[in-house]
Amino acid sequence: MSKSRVGIINVTGYAGVELARLLYRHPQVELTSVTGRSTTGQKLDTVFPHLASLDLTIESELGEVDLAFSAMPQKESSKEIIPLVKGGIKVVDISADFRLKDATQYPTWYGFTHPAPELLKQAVFGLPELYRSQIAAAQLVANPGCYPTGAILALAPAIKAGLIEPDIIIDSKSGISGAGRTLSLHVHYAEANEDVTAYGLEGHRHLPEITQELNLLAPQQPLKVVFIPHLIPMTRGILTTAYATLASGKVAAGKKGKEELMELYLDFYRDKPFARVVAASPHTKHTWGNNMCHIYPTIDPGGEKLIAISALDNLVKGAAGQAIQNMNLMLSFPETMGLEALAIYP
Amino acid sequence: MSKSRVGIINVTGYAGVELARLLYRHPQVELTSVTGRSTTGQKLDTVFPHLASLDLTIESELGEVDLAFSAMPQKESSKEIIPLVKGGIKVVDISADFRLKDATQYPTWYGFTHPAPELLKQAVFGLPELYRSQIAAAQLVANPGCYPTGAILALAPAIKAGLIEPDIIIDSKSGISGAGRTLSLHVHYAEANEDVTAYGLEGHRHLPEITQELNLLAPQQPLKVVFIPHLIPMTRGILTTAYATLASGKVAAGKKGKEELMELYLDFYRDKPFARVVAASPHTKHTWGNNMCHIYPTIDPGGEKLIAISALDNLVKGAAGQAIQNMNLMLSFPETMGLEALAIYP
Amino acid sequence: MSKSRVGIINVTGYAGVELARLLYRHPQVELTSVTGRSTTGQKLDTVFPHLASLDLTIESELGEVDLAFSAMPQKESSKEIIPLVKGGIKVVDISADFRLKDATQYPTWYGFTHPAPELLKQAVFGLPELYRSQIAAAQLVANPGCYPTGAILALAPAIKAGLIEPDIIIDSKSGISGAGRTLSLHVHYAEANEDVTAYGLEGHRHLPEITQELNLLAPQQPLKVVFIPHLIPMTRGILTTAYATLASGKVAAGKKGKEELMELYLDFYRDKPFARVVAASPHTKHTWGNNMCHIYPTIDPGGEKLIAISALDNLVKGAAGQAIQNMNLMLSFPETMGLEALAIYP
Amino acid sequence: MSKSRVGIINVTGYAGVELARLLYRHPQVELTSVTGRSTTGQKLDTVFPHLASLDLTIESELGEVDLAFSAMPQKESSKEIIPLVKGGIKVVDISADFRLKDATQYPTWYGFTHPAPELLKQAVFGLPELYRSQIAAAQLVANPGCYPTGAILALAPAIKAGLIEPDIIIDSKSGISGAGRTLSLHVHYAEANEDVTAYGLEGHRHLPEITQELNLLAPQQPLKVVFIPHLIPMTRGILTTAYATLASGKVAAGKKGKEELMELYLDFYRDKPFARVVAASPHTKHTWGNNMCHIYPTIDPGGEKLIAISALDNLVKGAAGQAIQNMNLMLSFPETMGLEALAIYP
Repeated sequence: MSKSRVGIINVTGYAGVELARLLYRHPQVELTSVTGRSTTGQKLDTVFPHLASLDLTIESELGEVDLAFSAMPQKESSKEIIPLVKGGIKVVDISADFRLKDATQYPTWYGFTHPAPELLKQAVFGLPELYRSQIAAAQLVANPGCYPTGAILALAPAIKAGLIEPDIIIDSKSGISGAGRTLSLHVHYAEANEDVTAYGLEGHRHLPEITQELNLLAPQQPLKVVFIPHLIPMTRGILTTAYATLASGKVAAGKKGKEELMELYLDFYRDKPFARVVAASPHTKHTWGNNMCHIYPTIDPGGEKLIAISALDNLVKGAAGQAIQNMNLMLSFPETMGLEALAIYP
Repeated sequence: MSKSRVGIINVTGYAGVELARLLYRHPQVELTSVTGRSTTGQKLDTVFPHLASLDLTIESELGEVDLAFSAMPQKESSKEIIPLVKGGIKVVDISADFRLKDATQYPTWYGFTHPAPELLKQAVFGLPELYRSQIAAAQLVANPGCYPTGAILALAPAIKAGLIEPDIIIDSKSGISGAGRTLSLHVHYAEANEDVTAYGLEGHRHLPEITQELNLLAPQQPLKVVFIPHLIPMTRGILTTAYATLASGKVAAGKKGKEELMELYLDFYRDKPFARVVAASPHTKHTWGNNMCHIYPTIDPGGEKLIAISALDNLVKGAAGQAIQNMNLMLSFPETMGLEALAIYP
Repeated sequence: MSKSRVGIINVTGYAGVELARLLYRHPQVELTSVTGRSTTGQKLDTVFPHLASLDLTIESELGEVDLAFSAMPQKESSKEIIPLVKGGIKVVDISADFRLKDATQYPTWYGFTHPAPELLKQAVFGLPELYRSQIAAAQLVANPGCYPTGAILALAPAIKAGLIEPDIIIDSKSGISGAGRTLSLHVHYAEANEDVTAYGLEGHRHLPEITQELNLLAPQQPLKVVFIPHLIPMTRGILTTAYATLASGKVAAGKKGKEELMELYLDFYRDKPFARVVAASPHTKHTWGNNMCHIYPTIDPGGEKLIAISALDNLVKGAAGQAIQNMNLMLSFPETMGLEALAIYP
Repeated sequence: MSKSRVGIINVTGYAGVELARLLYRHPQVELTSVTGRSTTGQKLDTVFPHLASLDLTIESELGEVDLAFSAMPQKESSKEIIPLVKGGIKVVDISADFRLKDATQYPTWYGFTHPAPELLKQAVFGLPELYRSQIAAAQLVANPGCYPTGAILALAPAIKAGLIEPDIIIDSKSGISGAGRTLSLHVHYAEANEDVTAYGLEGHRHLPEITQELNLLAPQQPLKVVFIPHLIPMTRGILTTAYATLASGKVAAGKKGKEELMELYLDFYRDKPFARVVAASPHTKHTWGNNMCHIYPTIDPGGEKLIAISALDNLVKGAAGQAIQNMNLMLSFPETMGLEALAIYP
């Protein structure tokens, strides 16, 4: 069987370059075309020496492919994608442009009017742990944000089971590559090193995405979600600590309650190869460079609160790896293909 | 006026060594005696080259002093302190041995029976922003833990004013020096670098201390506190993000509510030289090496939750600097004496 | 064809755990047995959650294998290896126990009398870029040290060609995982972070190994090698900057000289898949997690000195990856098998 | 005595902001005026929250002062300084604009024709350990570069004593704040973290400055200096490792030679309060945030090479602290005034 041809629109950001790295080892696809903006015409390894084995030139326009990944920033991404989708090409969009179902949210959160609201209905939210079959049938998949991936995977089993009250606090800690490759003072080395800060206090763009997806899981009442991201001095990784009050009578007291909770999570993620329920507080280091999300649910010492923690690599399960997982489903490859490498420790 | 003589019991941990650094610049005290455990008999600068200017030898027993700091670990500290207190020496204890008012908590949280429960009543909790006059009159001051300092300062104004419901989530992110100088795999460089994790999920020792102090501020009902600390890859600094539901009708809606909240905090910390209410999300970097705690209160985009954030240097305001602030009050020096150095940035 | 069975003696150090990670993806071998010391009897993923996919238990004794890797410390390693070699098992030793040809060096540099000097002659120094055919025929391969790998690859072409005078300065900068997983104050996070220092000033153990191998390449006269390693605050990577005076008349002046030098290096490393001569000053980041050594030779602005720089991942090309490269040659697999993953950036 | 008024031209770079921090604690000067470029009109603490205690506004033009520090970049700095010097104001220039005695070097190394070559003769190179009396009498002092400070202090005693051959290798490792506050991809957090690289291979701008000063110390013959800087992932600190061949017969063999060397260095730096000869390999951490340079000379195990290592904080002894040390001499204050704070460890 000949390999499928895939391309990356805007290979030069961190998500794009990570896609290139991972696709190089995929046995059933060939990365045949990559585009960039300021670096058009350069060999890929001039800009990224670690990609020398790929032997590709950065182009201004995508060549003919079976499936395209867009790693363009929001607003720009939909411009590139709309003609491809209309031309029948399968697309995984790593930007936010097709994640929100409600087109009116785009002006509010992203500052632009959505150019193709009809595609929002068609697009599938690319979290395979929730939407595996829909993704397999989709032409356009909206790859989730890095924070939403961790937050949703941490909370989905508890919300689906009606285990918690609607007030949810999500406190995330992210490595700095999540801010991208564009220069900015707050991610200048000497500013970001030896520092931690909360940001997005006026409302982070991932809040509507998290709220949309968690509400789709909530059986009874709308959730009230607080989401506060923090920047911490490391390159990769997001740890999300989510807090909610346990609904009365839903979980046993003491140790038994924790065991029931663990059982619920293990059941929920059975046969989900990249969502691993772990037996102790997870470390982002244990997911460094690979596509796994480690999830740990527990109950606070007071016995009244769910604490659900997830750890992932923001550029893999939080971006490029998940995009390939989605591609695998869309092209009928095994879900784990090309994503088998273990995390790099230490 | 001759200088007061002070000593440090167990100078060789990070709190002890930081005390020595700061005391070197204090104009009214002289550090005349330091003790250690494994390093007795060595010159201080053999172990700590940056302290060469102090010209002290590490002794096995404390010499005659007007005030002693104990930087011994819990359980060991009280053994050293009890005879000093009985001998009329003023003491600032950096350990947890005199922080909890209820002696029965020590077996539960610290694994030992308290040797002098009567001193727990006499000891003053050394948070000058709450107990300035009591500290000034005290013989024995229990210096707060690093996490409690940040958590209490973040929440005190809101709780005192009855602004929030009793359910409180405290999510803290600490640099690794907080774990001390004792070797352990989880703070081995290659393990802790490029990693973040939550710990203390079964109940961190600072939880009873935080709960005790916040409850003393709560006018009406007992609080339910969840406290989850996280270890992040930097040397110094704690950022605490605290969440609670605003009590109905206590704060105006929208921008006005945020302004009222800010005003409340500014009022509360007026004339508190080391608690600075700041105008934007605080950075631990802005407190690096100095005794300031930066505090920022706000309301979440949904309008229902208080978000109170504090930033401090865990070894200064979280330990040695606060101990000197307490000493200043106890010895009738200006509260800021010897602590005027600005934070080191970047 | 059935897979070869391989085992790891002492899987619990950083080299051992990295071997396990890399072997998991090797298509022609199966990791069937791993031993540890303090962790015997535990499941591998209890100690190393990122290795959960391997499903192995840490044993006290190695099971039956076709090839064994020893990741034991020096002195202990030879004790484990000698019976295996006598029993006809192929062995790659990651320790220093079989690297030095002259048995009298072991008491001097490693503090023990070598238990099997006769095996020192039989053992092949496992640097495939120099000894590919001997490794392919060997039963016992002594995997080079991390510093020697970088130093030798940086200098080999210039020395072999008689291009430089015998005085050589080698200044290496290493990430902290090179110090291993054993606890020590100098690699305690708060001590090692935000610090750089030179060490081994009295003579680092890798000096005789570097000197031995460089002298074997030197056509005319014995070399005088100075080697100073430095510890820098990052987890992985070694950058080596080597300096030597260009022999008179051997290289053209100016730009032409640099081109000749580059040509010489490109020729030397042609068909060496893991030694890549690069066009600009190399970054350790471009080799993070993979088996490549990037090498850059140039001439100083004064025109008289060779500056040869190499970058590698100390745990991959500097340890586990090179061990697998050696195994591939010993078991007649393609040299790159299982080592194709690209470096992880950023 | 009334305080002297000092000002900072371009307070918004890292050297400028560090000057402000240190001057705040100087008992005999008052920082009365600061200028900036893009931030004119803003309160200093809006840009730098840790400087809130200074209560200054960033101006477009310097007010009336007794002494001005220029922290402008090269070429721009001389434009600001020339009128001040002509107006009789004392100036410490942190840029390179008055460091090189030979005006013809400016086009070569800095790309501009020097606007006031006559001032190059008048300007004093501001390294107090070499030029204390000249600095005290100077109107214009050229504060040395960060790398030259460490390199010159490491080598000066040995060169002055004629101890070494003229070939010198200087290998420096710098934290990233040395690259300044201007945005650039190579100091973007995710690029610079977990990476080390050599740069300036075509000739770094500090090479002529180092060569000029070392040659002034060399009694007999011109030196041949190779200088290669490296960027390592930490915020502050420079470690310099310098190598040279010991001149025949100048130093005794073995341990005695090392002792003689140490004695020579101790003599040279006697009464130099900020050059401390230490007894073991120095750590940059032991100088973090203070004005000390730690220096350690030794002889390689082969007995033929001098290895001289220095450690300093690039923003203090390498920039702002040294500028204040120069100011103290120029204004007849004690050399150490305002610079007494100890290094911050850990």
